[in-house]
Amino acid sequence: MKPVVNMERLRSLLNGINAFGRLETGGFNRIGFSDADMAVRDWFAAEMRADGLTVTRDGANSVFGRYGAADAPSIMAGSHLDTVANGGAFDGALGVAVALECVRAMKDAGIRPAFPIEIVATSEEEGRFGGMLGSQAIAGLVTRDWLDHAADADGVTLKDAMRAGGLDPDAVLASARKPGSVKAFLELHIEQGPVLEREGTAIGLPEGATGIVNLQVRLRGTANHSGTTPMDMRADAFAGLAEIAVAIPQLISESGSDIARITIGKVELAPNHPHTIPGDAVFSVIIRDAAEEVMRGLQAAFGETCARVSGKHGLAFAIEEKSFIPPVAFDRELAALLHEEAGSLGLAARPMISGAGHDAQTMMTLCPSAMIFVPSRHGISHAPEEHTDWHDIEKGATLMLAALMRLSAG
Amino acid sequence: MKPVVNMERLRSLLNGINAFGRLETGGFNRIGFSDADMAVRDWFAAEMRADGLTVTRDGANSVFGRYGAADAPSIMAGSHLDTVANGGAFDGALGVAVALECVRAMKDAGIRPAFPIEIVATSEEEGRFGGMLGSQAIAGLVTRDWLDHAADADGVTLKDAMRAGGLDPDAVLASARKPGSVKAFLELHIEQGPVLEREGTAIGLPEGATGIVNLQVRLRGTANHSGTTPMDMRADAFAGLAEIAVAIPQLISESGSDIARITIGKVELAPNHPHTIPGDAVFSVIIRDAAEEVMRGLQAAFGETCARVSGKHGLAFAIEEKSFIPPVAFDRELAALLHEEAGSLGLAARPMISGAGHDAQTMMTLCPSAMIFVPSRHGISHAPEEHTDWHDIEKGATLMLAALMRLSAG
Repeated sequence: MKPVVNMERLRSLLNGINAFGRLETGGFNRIGFSDADMAVRDWFAAEMRADGLTVTRDGANSVFGRYGAADAPSIMAGSHLDTVANGGAFDGALGVAVALECVRAMKDAGIRPAFPIEIVATSEEEGRFGGMLGSQAIAGLVTRDWLDHAADADGVTLKDAMRAGGLDPDAVLASARKPGSVKAFLELHIEQGPVLEREGTAIGLPEGATGIVNLQVRLRGTANHSGTTPMDMRADAFAGLAEIAVAIPQLISESGSDIARITIGKVELAPNHPHTIPGDAVFSVIIRDAAEEVMRGLQAAFGETCARVSGKHGLAFAIEEKSFIPPVAFDRELAALLHEEAGSLGLAARPMISGAGHDAQTMMTLCPSAMIFVPSRHGISHAPEEHTDWHDIEKGATLMLAALMRLSAG
Repeated sequence: MKPVVNMERLRSLLNGINAFGRLETGGFNRIGFSDADMAVRDWFAAEMRADGLTVTRDGANSVFGRYGAADAPSIMAGSHLDTVANGGAFDGALGVAVALECVRAMKDAGIRPAFPIEIVATSEEEGRFGGMLGSQAIAGLVTRDWLDHAADADGVTLKDAMRAGGLDPDAVLASARKPGSVKAFLELHIEQGPVLEREGTAIGLPEGATGIVNLQVRLRGTANHSGTTPMDMRADAFAGLAEIAVAIPQLISESGSDIARITIGKVELAPNHPHTIPGDAVFSVIIRDAAEEVMRGLQAAFGETCARVSGKHGLAFAIEEKSFIPPVAFDRELAALLHEEAGSLGLAARPMISGAGHDAQTMMTLCPSAMIFVPSRHGISHAPEEHTDWHDIEKGATLMLAALMRLSAG
């Protein structure tokens, strides 16, 4: 008997997850180690136990459900159950639900895999504490120093948040899986961008995830009266910022790539008063690309643009590199397997690069990993309006099932 | 005996005024109807009484000191005693002190003018309540409706602020001077801009004051993930704003004049998060020129730029005109008289346009009015660093004295 995903059951499972942290906005708040995040894990663990899976938790509070032999290396599949504040119904939760539905479908079909399938619901992927705690703990990447100092934007420490949930923070460091104990990791996730929807393609198969340079730039001019200061005697920090911002498309065409992205998302002017020429502009610059040398090239070209424009406008400037996350390439063989299976199923799939960060990036340091993307309506994510068409989800889940069948067959 | 300004006495008078509202920043806070503003007027009135002047107050709490005949039309001279919060030592106070010093010098020289000189320290020029209350009351421009509804940025009503100072708000409406009762108004003020300092000219003689169009613009795009949204699928409200901002120099060169000024001083992005493409940008645009048709031309050209850029970036836009203040021309004969006197005194003076608002603009509706500007160090005003060199003040005060001598001679 050939296993088939049961869409009604999958939908019901996703609804069960999203009974936790539901907001009046239509969105969800299950930020890492919140009450809703703690509660959804208890509920999900109980669901998997009812399915007869062997359920465990690690020190970071990631929840696992094992289907198959206890001693063989596993095929791991899943995603995260935490959300951003006022996030959507699909980011993370869909990947967890699809993984469990695939195991349920195999169980229904009487399939006992040669290699066990391990469902995972990772903890704290959204970075409340500045990392991807769950997958970093599994991959053995959490350091004592980071664990001791991680805090959220409100100053709540990771350790206090874990203790408030009845967890022992030190157990995070003992949660690393042994190399070889996981054969592969697969994660289905919403694209969180508009590409698949615009193209009418149901499935994206990421070849990798972009790296991220996070810069903070400060331009310093002179705050002066907007009426008494002639245009040619100004040192207008916002005029400088604007000229830097409009140079971005040319920067990308000269030093970037088709998938390079530069975003100015946050701007703070001072004094920020209508009748005063801005004396200070502090702004964020996020540079992304799939190749580290392209990222560094864009960063250098951006710095040259800042210097040129600041000189022209009589501004002082300072660029601080807040963080640099290198790009990650997913496993080629796993991606090829997914392409093959999509082809066999008659599903249109396209290679792409993930612009967002995912657990699968972290898992690549432990085992071959790959992802399946499904379309996001209007490209919207991290918002109540986040949505994916259920026909597209069915295609993605069917591909996940086929891949798990093949990988676990031994 | 020829009257001469006594710079020691002038300096001491300015220091006396600035004993009120002094802050630890080195700045001053005498916002309209504050305790410091009420107290400085009592002190200044007592000074003028000690000089033998006839001291009165009107319903808006402007203070007057009359030197000369009680029944003849007066030559009025002065400025305001209120400051912005954390303002400087010279804005307003210097013009009041210079006017009184000129009368003191005339008195010392035994000069009894044919037309009385009336020193004025106007109230609430800095617009805490959105107008220039003191000079508007004198000129009969305050309406019942405005008086009943004026409130400051914290929601304190003008009426409550006046009552707290023991004043009767309704008396404001009875403070209008009769047409013909004031022959001329002269105001010495700091330039509040960098032009005189850069040119090394001690005296500016404004031909008028620029008008002000105050616009609020909203650009609406789509807030989306900075990593997953390709550059060519964005509706980035900040990218649109930046492109509008860099078009300003060309707008001015095509539709403006040498003294046209366009300033974007306040910018608010939403969600204003580094990793999110700005979905909304709300910003202020202040357009100034000395000619109303130029202002309207710039406003129209700015609107066309917003439309063109919004179309290109897929943004919706809305422009709200918050206020329109037409430009004012000062009295030509009075300005010519000031140029003549400056020439006789061997003082370099240049015509200019005031970019800031002043009581003299309002007074133009009652009587011929003109101004004398003295340089502002680095063009700075409305800040503790505000400063004017005392040698320059001496030149300005000497010119004011000469002009008052001539106008009051009959």
